[in-house]
Amino acid sequence: MAHDALLNDLRAAVGAAHVLTAGDTDLTPWEQDWRRRHRGRALAVVRPASTAEVAAVVRLCGQHGVAIVPQGGNTGLVLGGVPDGSGTQVVLSTTRLQRIRALDAANLTLTVEAGCILQTAQQAAAEAGLWLPLSLAAEGSCTIGGNLATNAGGTQVLRFGNARDLCLGLEVVTADGRVWDGLGGLRKDNTGYDLRHLFIGSEGTLGIITAAVLKLVPQPAAQLTAWAAVPSLDAAVALLGLAQRRLGPGLTGFEAMNRLALQLVQRHFPQLSVPLADAAPYAVLLELSDDEGEAHARARLEALLGDALQNGCAADAVVAANLAQARTLWHIRESIPLAQAEEGLNVKHDISVPVSRIPAFCAQAEAALAQTVPGARLVNFGHLGDGNLHFNVQCPDGADAAAFLRAHEARINALVYDHVQRHGGSISAEHGIGGLKAALLPRYKDPVALALMRSIKQALDPHGRFNPGRLLA
Amino acid sequence: MAHDALLNDLRAAVGAAHVLTAGDTDLTPWEQDWRRRHRGRALAVVRPASTAEVAAVVRLCGQHGVAIVPQGGNTGLVLGGVPDGSGTQVVLSTTRLQRIRALDAANLTLTVEAGCILQTAQQAAAEAGLWLPLSLAAEGSCTIGGNLATNAGGTQVLRFGNARDLCLGLEVVTADGRVWDGLGGLRKDNTGYDLRHLFIGSEGTLGIITAAVLKLVPQPAAQLTAWAAVPSLDAAVALLGLAQRRLGPGLTGFEAMNRLALQLVQRHFPQLSVPLADAAPYAVLLELSDDEGEAHARARLEALLGDALQNGCAADAVVAANLAQARTLWHIRESIPLAQAEEGLNVKHDISVPVSRIPAFCAQAEAALAQTVPGARLVNFGHLGDGNLHFNVQCPDGADAAAFLRAHEARINALVYDHVQRHGGSISAEHGIGGLKAALLPRYKDPVALALMRSIKQALDPHGRFNPGRLLA
Repeated sequence: MAHDALLNDLRAAVGAAHVLTAGDTDLTPWEQDWRRRHRGRALAVVRPASTAEVAAVVRLCGQHGVAIVPQGGNTGLVLGGVPDGSGTQVVLSTTRLQRIRALDAANLTLTVEAGCILQTAQQAAAEAGLWLPLSLAAEGSCTIGGNLATNAGGTQVLRFGNARDLCLGLEVVTADGRVWDGLGGLRKDNTGYDLRHLFIGSEGTLGIITAAVLKLVPQPAAQLTAWAAVPSLDAAVALLGLAQRRLGPGLTGFEAMNRLALQLVQRHFPQLSVPLADAAPYAVLLELSDDEGEAHARARLEALLGDALQNGCAADAVVAANLAQARTLWHIRESIPLAQAEEGLNVKHDISVPVSRIPAFCAQAEAALAQTVPGARLVNFGHLGDGNLHFNVQCPDGADAAAFLRAHEARINALVYDHVQRHGGSISAEHGIGGLKAALLPRYKDPVALALMRSIKQALDPHGRFNPGRLLA
Repeated sequence: MAHDALLNDLRAAVGAAHVLTAGDTDLTPWEQDWRRRHRGRALAVVRPASTAEVAAVVRLCGQHGVAIVPQGGNTGLVLGGVPDGSGTQVVLSTTRLQRIRALDAANLTLTVEAGCILQTAQQAAAEAGLWLPLSLAAEGSCTIGGNLATNAGGTQVLRFGNARDLCLGLEVVTADGRVWDGLGGLRKDNTGYDLRHLFIGSEGTLGIITAAVLKLVPQPAAQLTAWAAVPSLDAAVALLGLAQRRLGPGLTGFEAMNRLALQLVQRHFPQLSVPLADAAPYAVLLELSDDEGEAHARARLEALLGDALQNGCAADAVVAANLAQARTLWHIRESIPLAQAEEGLNVKHDISVPVSRIPAFCAQAEAALAQTVPGARLVNFGHLGDGNLHFNVQCPDGADAAAFLRAHEARINALVYDHVQRHGGSISAEHGIGGLKAALLPRYKDPVALALMRSIKQALDPHGRFNPGRLLA
């Protein structure tokens, strides 16, 4: 076989035990995507244990003209980290690069390798009394490298920004197998182009992130969670503005969910008691992180909600009495995708528009949906504070979900994305493009931006070795 | 003259009144740098009034093979925005692009053109009850385009980051004269490479920023300023950590100044009364932005300082009693560079190291300085919370400053930068590279990073039309 020489070279570079092929190992965990919608076929799965080994793998694949698909925890949602069906691509798994290299408490930084699980990094920070404020559903299995390669979002973006905003520096293996050491951990460094932000969010198409310096913050003295029933999305946006003015940077979470989203949670997880379930068309979950203490936090949050009830932007509200109740409220919010899955196949979106456009966008897109696909059920929820909604569509009650998707998925996508575009929004707020949306990008992305992206790809990966077909099809 | 055809084309594009040449206008304001250390000579100064006119100028210069030096308020400190001495470069001044295009209060964004003065943008935000938290000494004359092209820093980076962290989107004219419209104003958009962060900080070498969307935040209910005498830099770093834990994101400023810096202010501006002037080797200025009100802020700040006095990281401290006193404290801090100028020519640096390395870096660099240039006086001050110091050197008391600089400037620079490098720092924290440090960069920048930068420059500006010789020499 033509690839035998490469496999032998790879075995010499990382050890035979860490070059897996279908002949000796079930490669499903690396070849199948998280949502189990795609099964690729890898030439091999290679698991280097150090930056030097990653560089060696890149050089060897380059010499043999073989493409590399970098993969972290394989929890991506857009087919950005699994091989295609050709059997010619090498999956470079970063999961053995898992060391925590340093924690600098005075500099408030954590230096970790790319394969470190997000939760492990969170715990390392917590043990030092610090907080790594990146939190997402997959945190128990996703890796820091994947978080950065996809610029992951999650529930604390409102205050702390996306993954890129938590990163001060990177170590990256480039397409020619060299290592860029950008792990300085500086808060200010104006000595040239910001390579860090170029690699972050590039979905493994420009280089392989092998380590990163992450920003930490002191742990807050108290966190409190509240739940409010709101009469409309306009009211939700007004409540957001009020909370931002009153709580300032203390507001660390602001999630919205429509009534159907909560009804599905109740139907499929009846043990979860949803507060104020039928009180209003939307519910909002607020989180306050306070630097003084619980009593202070409670007084602030109750004063805010009192004003919100009075001025009509909330119809009813509760503050979690204790940590267990707060966890339940977050658990309800996080159970919506699972409840959707229990309800049956559905059409998912991950869109953003300016916060001020949310009510108009939702009203117009929902009306168009009702007209185009009568009976389709909108499950609308997400990170309202960031303008990011998962505007998902379930088939009519009782209908055949698979048949519904076959008939309507493409049409629903086009309808939603066209409305997003009309409101100046993004067709991928936090999940990325990967292989799933690469073909759509030319329709929705500014053509000059796309041309610039292609120039950069050509400059940094001239032979197209890194994750071909993803992001830029 | 060979350039007549270009000048005629430029006049047709932007109007004859906006193509200035030395034959008809004194070009000093555009040809001379802010510090008056360099006087270039421009082929012409062109002042387009719209993005379309900028694009036309870029295309015309491209056709005629003429280089463009983009210039905003011309307040840069590293010779990045003035022409060289050849008389062959066109200065493209953005100062007529000064519209405020939109303020979206619900989205907390301000869309402004590149030539808008920073202070004008700050005022537009303030009139809407909002805050644009970018503040620097030149704010009355620097422009937003320049702030972004150089990724400006300033006094609120500790909490809000550099200029790049306040920017959600850009409009840019590329080297081929096309316009990238990236003004979406989205907080989350994972649809490709982050072009925004590539242009920000590129010092006009990759494209011309014509407009930007800036993040705003609600105005705090109160701001309080305090001044503490600290026994050492170790104590200053300890006080920073304590303040970060106690005040969280409320801590919006943390500046440090050594005794000599304050003595020079007293000597040259005796009307400014420096508190606790001789109490300790360093003084620290702290700013608390509070979302509840002045009484609450005062209680927090006094509790913090009480603890700092008790645990020894402060020797003495005062909280400004009112806004006038707070302004005076900031004024003292901001007068240090002016006091240095009054004292005489000096050697300036703008360096950063990880916050945890500040004490060791300063001790070692100061000792080496005393040994290498006996009698040299260190004026050390800056944004300690960001690890960014202006580690400046004045000649021995009574010596001839000009002769001192001729004899020692290069040696002092090398000494300081070599120590910076040893501590993993940056030779330009917030001012940039420009023409001043371009020749130094290869010595201090990671070679792989430099190679990546050159590839990107080649990809985006293949004919080297934008700001040649700056940043990448």
